[in-house]
Amino acid sequence: MTMVSEAVIAALREALGDRAVLSGADIPDRNRQDWSTLSAVLPLAVVRPNDPAGVAAAMRIAAAHGVPVVPQGGLTGLAGGARPIDGAIALSLERLTGIEEIDRDSSTMTVRAGTTLETIQKAAEDAGLYCALDLGARGSCAIGGNVSTNAGGNRVLRYGMAREMVLGLEVVLPDGTLVTSLNKMLKNNAGYDLKQLFIGSEGTLGIITRIVLRLFPRPQCTMAALCGLPSYDAVLALLASARGSLGPLLSAFEVMWPDYWDVATRKVAGVRDPLTSAHPFYVLVEAQGNKDSDIEGFESWLESQVEAEVISDAAVAQSLADVKAFWGTRDAAADFKLILGPHNSYDIGLAVADMDRYAESCRARLARDIPGCVSFFYGHIADGNMHIIACVPDAVPQPYDAIDAIVYDEVRRFHGTVSAEHGIGLKKKPYLPFSRTPEELALMKVIKQALDPNALLNPGKVL
Amino acid sequence: MTMVSEAVIAALREALGDRAVLSGADIPDRNRQDWSTLSAVLPLAVVRPNDPAGVAAAMRIAAAHGVPVVPQGGLTGLAGGARPIDGAIALSLERLTGIEEIDRDSSTMTVRAGTTLETIQKAAEDAGLYCALDLGARGSCAIGGNVSTNAGGNRVLRYGMAREMVLGLEVVLPDGTLVTSLNKMLKNNAGYDLKQLFIGSEGTLGIITRIVLRLFPRPQCTMAALCGLPSYDAVLALLASARGSLGPLLSAFEVMWPDYWDVATRKVAGVRDPLTSAHPFYVLVEAQGNKDSDIEGFESWLESQVEAEVISDAAVAQSLADVKAFWGTRDAAADFKLILGPHNSYDIGLAVADMDRYAESCRARLARDIPGCVSFFYGHIADGNMHIIACVPDAVPQPYDAIDAIVYDEVRRFHGTVSAEHGIGLKKKPYLPFSRTPEELALMKVIKQALDPNALLNPGKVL
Repeated sequence: MTMVSEAVIAALREALGDRAVLSGADIPDRNRQDWSTLSAVLPLAVVRPNDPAGVAAAMRIAAAHGVPVVPQGGLTGLAGGARPIDGAIALSLERLTGIEEIDRDSSTMTVRAGTTLETIQKAAEDAGLYCALDLGARGSCAIGGNVSTNAGGNRVLRYGMAREMVLGLEVVLPDGTLVTSLNKMLKNNAGYDLKQLFIGSEGTLGIITRIVLRLFPRPQCTMAALCGLPSYDAVLALLASARGSLGPLLSAFEVMWPDYWDVATRKVAGVRDPLTSAHPFYVLVEAQGNKDSDIEGFESWLESQVEAEVISDAAVAQSLADVKAFWGTRDAAADFKLILGPHNSYDIGLAVADMDRYAESCRARLARDIPGCVSFFYGHIADGNMHIIACVPDAVPQPYDAIDAIVYDEVRRFHGTVSAEHGIGLKKKPYLPFSRTPEELALMKVIKQALDPNALLNPGKVL
Repeated sequence: MTMVSEAVIAALREALGDRAVLSGADIPDRNRQDWSTLSAVLPLAVVRPNDPAGVAAAMRIAAAHGVPVVPQGGLTGLAGGARPIDGAIALSLERLTGIEEIDRDSSTMTVRAGTTLETIQKAAEDAGLYCALDLGARGSCAIGGNVSTNAGGNRVLRYGMAREMVLGLEVVLPDGTLVTSLNKMLKNNAGYDLKQLFIGSEGTLGIITRIVLRLFPRPQCTMAALCGLPSYDAVLALLASARGSLGPLLSAFEVMWPDYWDVATRKVAGVRDPLTSAHPFYVLVEAQGNKDSDIEGFESWLESQVEAEVISDAAVAQSLADVKAFWGTRDAAADFKLILGPHNSYDIGLAVADMDRYAESCRARLARDIPGCVSFFYGHIADGNMHIIACVPDAVPQPYDAIDAIVYDEVRRFHGTVSAEHGIGLKKKPYLPFSRTPEELALMKVIKQALDPNALLNPGKVL
């Protein structure tokens, strides 16, 4: 260990107490990597402050010693944004947890960054309100990570991404300044909207310590159907019809291609196929309503789509258990690793109209150019966001670079984005220029340089 | 005229043609001021490019000569953001107009910055879609100004502010670089979300040239009621009930205090009072539905609130003409100038629960400390946004500074914002520290310095 390393660890222990600073063999495995496919890295130390002032103190000490800092939340990221860096401090928000306030009149919750999303969802529900952010890792992911990566998830169509749910933010800047901006108002045009800088910048500009979340009225009923469709044109027609007829009640529109569907419903434990035959496309459509007539409205809309032959076959949820079971076909994605072993997961974005052409072209190139490569397509199609799972089963090592190259080259060809919701982190950095112009990239660097001139915060991530 | 001034005008004429450059007496009155109460200023020249490349060329020439630039849209701003600066070029987007594309599958519109909001609303409607941004100046304001000031308006409660409706943006930076980022996807996490920098920064960081707007499904029916309520507690109860029962259909919740109501319904031509008696509070509640049962749902919810004595009296719109007439009571605010003469308009933000206490306290202080001062309170209460009209009728000059001091001191006392939707511009600059901490202001200056190191773009505005 260098003298600088020893000095910074000593200073951190002095400021935050021994319990807050772990080094060497004391560093838990969980702090050495995230859910990406990247290998583990031992950081210089893990620092775990239990209040915002402690985060600021740790950052000030790191800055004084010129030691970089990697913020860590629930470590469920798939892009490597929270993966440690050799010689850097991992600043974990795992002890900065808890809900500080729920304000019913303003319909807001003030929460500490390390709190898990599921804890927040439950607290909102207990208060008769609704946290609209939801994603598969809800039980493990931290809200600070959700916000710093601008998480998307299951109900973006209706409620927007994490960005749209944040009203106020507290952050620690790379020089250790604590900027407290815990606005609870829906509208605030008093100068630049600074929180936007920190939402989605993956911990490269500041460390989020507290968040004011916008809560929503709790829906009174949830309607869902699983539909088999004859073509992608029918998928587009169903989406247009759902938007027009269900309006703002439409809360999810998930499309699954047959390759995905077959694995999800036949090989993943506990998932069943509610339809009686096979179809070229499967759509999970969900709406949230406020009165009994919304249920009737949903069902009669669905019938109209069957009559118009847009839908070939549909199963309608009769209970919340059914709704959950239908979502099981989508959540099954998380269990593909049990069947396929290690694989890459993608979160590309495209124009809605291009999705099927992309899937066809990408699937064909992967199969042709990478022997044994399998790929599975599904996702939040109404948001323009497709997920892909791809690998060569049993191959060691996996040809991740070759798969990436094809997946992202096709994204470039279709003018899409290499990340719709997971972020860039380390894994997509080489492909960022596929989706951003040189002028955009130069401007991002101007921002990074202005806020973090000494490259102390999550260096080498995103840019 | 200085040599620099002559040289820059000659260079602009050379690059953009004579028709695009006006100077001296040729400068129209409209380009000399905005809708704020600030006096007119003659700019060095008015430049009116008719394409994004022309905007970039003009900015490059101004930068090369060190001459500042003030972007101008529809000039309907109330904060002085587009008011010319002596010796600076006014860069007007008035010839950069037109809708470039409506994409039905993506539900987006690509539009040039000088296009009026009303033109956009009509084009969306013609395409069977809906532009959710709406505000009183719709016929005159330009979408570029709406976005650069992050306009709010009538339906923020349901659809969000201008910020939430922008998917892509093209801007010219202070050095003349054109950054084209015309994203049409709902989700795009490929690096920093640069558009957020330019939305709401009032032309101090870049000049918006083109915008991709998110469009929404067109509502099938609009329900509205004007209600008299017995107390502010009843207003809060009605809001909570509306949120819970109407859910995402709730599109507006406007509150008017009796002082405002009396002038609006008795003195403004063409506005009538649909209620039969006087009340302590008046609420215009609007919902947008998708089926007939939504109308029944709205009416039965309203009845339940009358039965619960939350509402004392209500008029329910029976037609779109009624809906329009009800909104007339709110739009009447624009005609207060015909009755009161010159006055100040405010757009403060507060916690919803504090609104009436604020109104009482502010009204009392204004009446006590400024002889003859009258004040009128109304606004988008569900958004935490209150408007105030205040003046001393017939006084010349108006004691604007004294009124500002009281209005904003009360905002500070209630931890509110000095601008919920109009922006800071010049008029609210002295009061920005009432709503932002020194750390927030310092960070805003870091951003301004990074993007516009030579203070060429709208200098002296906001910060």
